Amino acid sequence: MDTAELVELGQQLRVDSVRAADAAGSGHPTSSMSAADLMAVLLAHHLRYDFDRPAHPGNDRFVLSKGHASPLLYAAYKAAGAIDDAELLTFRMLDSRLEGHPTPQRLPWVETATGSLGQGLPVGVGIALSGKRLERTGYRVWVLCGDSELAEGSVWEAAEHAAYEHLDNLTLIVDVNRLGQRGPTRHGHDLDAYARRFRAFGWHTVEVDGHDVDAVDRSYSEAASTHRQPTVILARTLKGKGVASVQDREGLHGKPLPDADAAIAELGGPRDLRVQVREPVAARALHSVRADHLELPRYDRGDDVSTRDAFGQALATLGSARGDVVALDGEVGDSTRAEFFAKEHPDRYFECYIAEQQLVGAAVGLAARGWVPYASTFAAFFTRAYDFIRMAAVSGAGINLVGSHAGVSIGQDGPSQMGLEDLAMMRAVHGSTVLYPCDANQTARLVATTAGLDGVRYLRTSRGAGPVVYGPDEKFPVGGSKVLRFSSRDRLTVVAAGVTVHEALAAVDALDREGIQVRVIDLYSVKPVDRETLRQAAEDTGCLLTVEDHHPEGGIGDAVLDAFLDGRPVPRLVRLAVRTMPGSASPAEQLHAAGIDAESIAAAGLLLVETAIVR
Amino acid sequence: MDTAELVELGQQLRVDSVRAADAAGSGHPTSSMSAADLMAVLLAHHLRYDFDRPAHPGNDRFVLSKGHASPLLYAAYKAAGAIDDAELLTFRMLDSRLEGHPTPQRLPWVETATGSLGQGLPVGVGIALSGKRLERTGYRVWVLCGDSELAEGSVWEAAEHAAYEHLDNLTLIVDVNRLGQRGPTRHGHDLDAYARRFRAFGWHTVEVDGHDVDAVDRSYSEAASTHRQPTVILARTLKGKGVASVQDREGLHGKPLPDADAAIAELGGPRDLRVQVREPVAARALHSVRADHLELPRYDRGDDVSTRDAFGQALATLGSARGDVVALDGEVGDSTRAEFFAKEHPDRYFECYIAEQQLVGAAVGLAARGWVPYASTFAAFFTRAYDFIRMAAVSGAGINLVGSHAGVSIGQDGPSQMGLEDLAMMRAVHGSTVLYPCDANQTARLVATTAGLDGVRYLRTSRGAGPVVYGPDEKFPVGGSKVLRFSSRDRLTVVAAGVTVHEALAAVDALDREGIQVRVIDLYSVKPVDRETLRQAAEDTGCLLTVEDHHPEGGIGDAVLDAFLDGRPVPRLVRLAVRTMPGSASPAEQLHAAGIDAESIAAAGLLLVETAIVR
Repeated sequence: MDTAELVELGQQLRVDSVRAADAAGSGHPTSSMSAADLMAVLLAHHLRYDFDRPAHPGNDRFVLSKGHASPLLYAAYKAAGAIDDAELLTFRMLDSRLEGHPTPQRLPWVETATGSLGQGLPVGVGIALSGKRLERTGYRVWVLCGDSELAEGSVWEAAEHAAYEHLDNLTLIVDVNRLGQRGPTRHGHDLDAYARRFRAFGWHTVEVDGHDVDAVDRSYSEAASTHRQPTVILARTLKGKGVASVQDREGLHGKPLPDADAAIAELGGPRDLRVQVREPVAARALHSVRADHLELPRYDRGDDVSTRDAFGQALATLGSARGDVVALDGEVGDSTRAEFFAKEHPDRYFECYIAEQQLVGAAVGLAARGWVPYASTFAAFFTRAYDFIRMAAVSGAGINLVGSHAGVSIGQDGPSQMGLEDLAMMRAVHGSTVLYPCDANQTARLVATTAGLDGVRYLRTSRGAGPVVYGPDEKFPVGGSKVLRFSSRDRLTVVAAGVTVHEALAAVDALDREGIQVRVIDLYSVKPVDRETLRQAAEDTGCLLTVEDHHPEGGIGDAVLDAFLDGRPVPRLVRLAVRTMPGSASPAEQLHAAGIDAESIAAAGLLLVETAIVR
Repeated sequence: MDTAELVELGQQLRVDSVRAADAAGSGHPTSSMSAADLMAVLLAHHLRYDFDRPAHPGNDRFVLSKGHASPLLYAAYKAAGAIDDAELLTFRMLDSRLEGHPTPQRLPWVETATGSLGQGLPVGVGIALSGKRLERTGYRVWVLCGDSELAEGSVWEAAEHAAYEHLDNLTLIVDVNRLGQRGPTRHGHDLDAYARRFRAFGWHTVEVDGHDVDAVDRSYSEAASTHRQPTVILARTLKGKGVASVQDREGLHGKPLPDADAAIAELGGPRDLRVQVREPVAARALHSVRADHLELPRYDRGDDVSTRDAFGQALATLGSARGDVVALDGEVGDSTRAEFFAKEHPDRYFECYIAEQQLVGAAVGLAARGWVPYASTFAAFFTRAYDFIRMAAVSGAGINLVGSHAGVSIGQDGPSQMGLEDLAMMRAVHGSTVLYPCDANQTARLVATTAGLDGVRYLRTSRGAGPVVYGPDEKFPVGGSKVLRFSSRDRLTVVAAGVTVHEALAAVDALDREGIQVRVIDLYSVKPVDRETLRQAAEDTGCLLTVEDHHPEGGIGDAVLDAFLDGRPVPRLVRLAVRTMPGSASPAEQLHAAGIDAESIAAAGLLLVETAIVR
């Protein structure tokens, strides 16, 4: 396209953005209009993409980090022939594919769900890492973001990561329209302020008038020809560009234009330009998944092994069997034991340093390219990335998160290092799977199992060694549980998981010696829970005593309730959990102080018997 | 102190760090040894602090962001005479004040709990904002952090905020010892790499040999005399400095020295230097809390008002009545309605732009200085700051968090903007209070109430307008609930909160017309819950139907269970919640699609009657 045609295409994208938001009665046309020329040039001259084959391995990848500018994205899809005008006007309506913020669950051309700002670049880094280090194809990753979102720390985690990894296949386009939602940004149109920051982080920077299509064109070419560095295009733009009544004005964020017809007329009326998008680069099929025989590590019953050790060892063997498994860690691989994988498969290991948002963002990006990522850090520090985890679920991304050092049982390091909210956090994620193994063989099996699941999978591991309870050939289906103590005379059921399984077994054996039979359920699958076994236990014993190394809210106690929410009779319930703020102490002291050790469980059991709460 | 004495003091701090970790059998002596000279010079010459009066308003404030270097902090306390040697050796033991990572809950000289890296600077920015904009005293804020944690995006959110606010009362000291937990950092000893970044963000930078006490001394003086800019001291250090067998070596993070006696001998043996710390600057009492009569806004029954509007209006009046109330927002004050406060009290309003970690970090810092902060953003985006919220609870910080746009009822914007995990997340925080009002008068009352509570207080508000249900003089105690429909013939109880209260009332009125009486409880206090009312309803009606605009896990359904966890009979329970991934649709369509609207509630109620689950 020549200059005039590019200008026309930009106007078309504006008109269609205005029309879509007007039809919806909501949306962000002014945020779309500022970036329309940036998008027009990208679509017409630089993006190499086959809209008929979104899975083509050579396709460039485009991420709209400023997801609220979705009208612009959908206008571009229309210009590329991917959707028609009728569909464009279904924007934001029930059951439309064209949501307020784009998601890959609805549209095959969307790489990742956006709408929480500052996430596009971290995910784009993950995709670019795949392109550069794993797929080794020539596709380019283009991320379009707003200027407001540069205030998010996650952007700078990503900036650091991208430059360190020399991701010259990555281009960030910043639509510097100077206006955030409620007013001016900190730096307004001071492109230099942003350029200084990106240059200091190791990026190549280009400053450009975002409405000068030829200059934009040159800037993209410059990005594509820059080696060993990612490039950021800092484009000076005007919010609402092209319509005088809204252009560069405050107070108009997220609102359809007051007079759409007049605006469309001012923009020169509707057009129907059709863009012939460039072909993708030649590329092999995404990656050949080797699926050799999996030889999981095997542990002898009674040996003391930590579940974090078993995780690391199992992940390393899984990596040997499956070529599509990759691992990432937040600079604690020696603690989480992800380092076992790193040593065997350094080419598929991604050190993310202490940047948990980037850690999860990269995992989402790698998953978008078909890899099976395992991202690990302390359970406590996944709280840092909760927004990314939540958004991964909106994307429908398949990622494994492995949180070590869960609970008070870590000991002396104290509450800052203890995951005590992680089960609540992970259970509340839509479509998530939450697993909490108690021994090494169980851990190894579950590590292998989660590779094949959908959605966000969370595995909780423990710091300290505990006895191996199960044989190496035992099966642990997701949604299952294990009944470890059982008799026809059980008067109570203790439901435990992870470290509390061992405490429960000791407690119940002590009670047994006093003639009180108690059932023990190892609830390794916290979500989904094993409804049948829990219901049977409720029917048989009448009372369930849950014991968890977690705060009382949202963890195992609440998970058990899931078995009884259809109006059936609910058993009596008693919950032992961490109710006080722990300090430093030994692991055994911690479990005792929290009232979740064997002694506490036995005492609770006895009390329930004596007060006739159990039969 | 002269140079030789400073060197000696540094060695003493090293020896005492080694001794403390050796006594504990765990801890981070090598991370303490790298920063020992930095700490010695600060303590001896620059920190102005009265250890006998930690509440002195003129005290400088010191934040140990690298909280794992706690042995160094405690060694400094000993050198200052704040603790004795016997206490030093209680490090990391049960009930000791000297935890693995320092917390203000145990020690009066600690400003904020650390141990999750990258949090010290954001909180320090909050304290410095207080000093500069509110207290207007001359105290200085010193933050000591590690080099690894500069990978955290939260550090760059804080760097941006500090420079933008010209916080020249803030000094960041970076102990660049080049080694993280599992190996070298990205930039090793390249101080320039860090200096470039901080300069680009608007900071004054000083690079220094962190073991040259005179150079360090000069760098602190330079920081103190720098105007209009925060200063970062980038200090080149060696991890484990002073003991050849561990100095600058990998694999020794977080471990006591292998031979403590030999190490102490190599360091020149124990010393007993006592530092005379400088006096605090003269300052008035912290701030006089004006407590004028509070005139909350009053709303008429039946009027349509959104709870976010009521929040903003109530907060503005609260700010008029109380001089200690401050507000912060993450660049969405026009949506959360924090802007109502901003307009009336601009001097006590802090715009944090789109940086939710800094938003909560600043609130924690302001709370540390005695202010009552209200920090607001979309409920969904508090997930971005969950680690800060969790750590605020470890600190025991009193902060109010107000999350707007909760649930699917926001409508077209789609799942990225919907808080659907926030109740789970906030309930799982230790000592938190979680409130979810359904009308404007209730909201106003609760906004005022939370000002006087301890710990993390969360208020969930809604986007859309709803009818005012309560009169303006109604009381809403924390831990209470309201029974909105009641008869002696109730066959079922619907438990709702927020937007679902209105749906429940409509449903129950429809059922009543069919002769089915149903109780309705407005569970505005989600944590703590009103046990008595829920138990009475269970006893009276046998079955509870919970309805929530939230994922099924960790929200209102689980909260209700808290009333029945002491082994008493549990009612039958049925839960309506958001089980599918929403898309874009109108608010009414969203509530219907999620099965939590009046029609769905009535249908569930009828089903329970027909299947004889209710009486």
